[in-house]
Amino acid sequence: MFEYDLIARQGKARAGVFHTPHGDLQTPVFAPVGTQATVKTLTPDQLNDLGASLVLTNTYHLYLRPGDELIAEQGGLHQFMNWPNPILTDSGGFQVFSLSKTRKIDNDGVTFKSHIDGSTHRFTPERSIQIQNNLGADIIMAFDECSDPNDHTYSKIAMERTHRWAERSLEAHRRSDQAIFGIIQGGVDPELREKSANFISSMPFPGIAIGGLSVGETKDEMHDILDLVTPLLPENKPRYLMGVGTPEDLINGVARGIDIFDCVLPTRLARHNAAFSSEGRLNLMNAIFARDSRPIDALCDCYTCRTFTRAYLRHLIVAKELLAGTLLSIHNLHTMIALVNDMRNSIVEGTFDNIIGQGLLQWQGNAERTNSKKDKG
Amino acid sequence: MFEYDLIARQGKARAGVFHTPHGDLQTPVFAPVGTQATVKTLTPDQLNDLGASLVLTNTYHLYLRPGDELIAEQGGLHQFMNWPNPILTDSGGFQVFSLSKTRKIDNDGVTFKSHIDGSTHRFTPERSIQIQNNLGADIIMAFDECSDPNDHTYSKIAMERTHRWAERSLEAHRRSDQAIFGIIQGGVDPELREKSANFISSMPFPGIAIGGLSVGETKDEMHDILDLVTPLLPENKPRYLMGVGTPEDLINGVARGIDIFDCVLPTRLARHNAAFSSEGRLNLMNAIFARDSRPIDALCDCYTCRTFTRAYLRHLIVAKELLAGTLLSIHNLHTMIALVNDMRNSIVEGTFDNIIGQGLLQWQGNAERTNSKKDKG
Repeated sequence: MFEYDLIARQGKARAGVFHTPHGDLQTPVFAPVGTQATVKTLTPDQLNDLGASLVLTNTYHLYLRPGDELIAEQGGLHQFMNWPNPILTDSGGFQVFSLSKTRKIDNDGVTFKSHIDGSTHRFTPERSIQIQNNLGADIIMAFDECSDPNDHTYSKIAMERTHRWAERSLEAHRRSDQAIFGIIQGGVDPELREKSANFISSMPFPGIAIGGLSVGETKDEMHDILDLVTPLLPENKPRYLMGVGTPEDLINGVARGIDIFDCVLPTRLARHNAAFSSEGRLNLMNAIFARDSRPIDALCDCYTCRTFTRAYLRHLIVAKELLAGTLLSIHNLHTMIALVNDMRNSIVEGTFDNIIGQGLLQWQGNAERTNSKKDKG
Repeated sequence: MFEYDLIARQGKARAGVFHTPHGDLQTPVFAPVGTQATVKTLTPDQLNDLGASLVLTNTYHLYLRPGDELIAEQGGLHQFMNWPNPILTDSGGFQVFSLSKTRKIDNDGVTFKSHIDGSTHRFTPERSIQIQNNLGADIIMAFDECSDPNDHTYSKIAMERTHRWAERSLEAHRRSDQAIFGIIQGGVDPELREKSANFISSMPFPGIAIGGLSVGETKDEMHDILDLVTPLLPENKPRYLMGVGTPEDLINGVARGIDIFDCVLPTRLARHNAAFSSEGRLNLMNAIFARDSRPIDALCDCYTCRTFTRAYLRHLIVAKELLAGTLLSIHNLHTMIALVNDMRNSIVEGTFDNIIGQGLLQWQGNAERTNSKKDKG
């Protein structure tokens, strides 16, 4: 269990398989985000039809509502939300730092107020892992602290705390049917990142995550950190780039050796009437689409593009019909999932190098940055 | 085309087939309401999986937004909303009378203000039919006036105007691939209803609708009117009871010879967190469901009941997740569609009389009245 098999590689790009109790993950993989135990507006059947395999859900949100013990009583996350395939839970750390207005961090943990009702709660590494053990995802995350990447002093403190918390998280973990991943921090400082990559890699985590990116640094800074970090990581463990990103980010990540991605962007854009397309990002509310009988993207073969015109989608948006969000979520998630699948196939076939440039060109109009995890999914 | 074949009958209850350009309707049939060219929160695929055949859409709403000419340009309603099966459009009359704050009725037509932007518009029988010809549904409705059933004087005026408008609607109709149905009015007055039934039946409409019920009269009054009217109608045409109703109403309607029903109730209840069940109507927001691991209805085999617990549905509702509306719409529509299908089978098998009492008992807790069409679907 939790072994990573490297199937093929081209340059730093890897195609692999990660074995979990709920099935094999073909990597690289993009995980749709189901913050509150639902990928917004989609049924598990629709998600399955999209070819989704791994789904991310959120420890902070589910701890507060409906509660991890309730979910455990109901048979765990897989049964509760009816997702038979692998699930990943984050540690809740990012949300505690970004959603809670009042929070106090000390070396032991974080005290914070619920964004729902203002009640006071406390997360420690032990508590986060206990909650994640209750939720029952296949992949769980060590409790970490994400710093402002531009604040060097804070990045160093946060990284050191993250390392102590990684040890405590590993120690607190109780379930052999869950893989716990360690998280590398260190902001945009090469020295800190190298130190963190080596420290986390030295621990017996079955997978390694890179946190604290896509949170305020530039694209070049993100790429530099990835170029520095991934060569330091063990070959035989999956690498997860947390909260990233756009179609372009996925290509840049895979090219630098990343195996797992998650991002709220596809579903969040859908709620804002926006769609990825090979012509650049489209806002379907725009009046120019009122009589446009083309699909969102002629190159896309998702249910939405096979079935509906831009004119119909715009009508749904203008008429405030919720189906618009469902159909745009299907399209945007399909775009990401199809993109990682295409990259995987090209790595296996040895043609990945040839398609990077073309892929980056195709998706460059969709590259707008997003501070991904601050949104609720 | 537009022939009605009577397959079986038991008492007044009928099982039949109505032939349309987009397929045969097995009657009795319940039509989900897709006010704005979408059955709220559901994809056509989901609707098809539910076994829906006929879908109702709304002339008033689609005329205002996105416009009937735009829909005609986009290939008509079937293509626009991707519903390959039969569609019915109402005449827009009911919405003009119920949604528009300022409206002036004269013998020629109705001038009204848009509920969207206050702009002034005018519907006449000719205009309503022209719009419905543009929309392109299989079944379209004569333009009628629905009165307050408790106002005898107004009911008589409205009925007489409805009769003149029926003649003008029939005269204005242009497309042989659309069936136009006449509408019986007359409030709760037996004399008016008898007169209207005879008048509309005498005209060459391929189908007959009963309007002006479920708009403020009692259940007994509705049943009395149906007992009076259906025996006056031609055997070889389908009978459509507009805007009705609850599961109990469907049983009472079929028992009195009705073939077609539509109602916003299943999808509207879903938006208010309510579900039909054989235990009575449930509001899934209720805290008693927080740890309830049963499906909504143990007797139901819809996707929602096969897949999700009450505890999960309550979590979605409390967390304001839109998937709740989708899953409850699936359940509530399935209930109505399965109910008419069961009734049809029992009529064919000659067992309908035996199941009426049991059916009414099963569904009595769901019988709350609704002023169906005033809601947007």
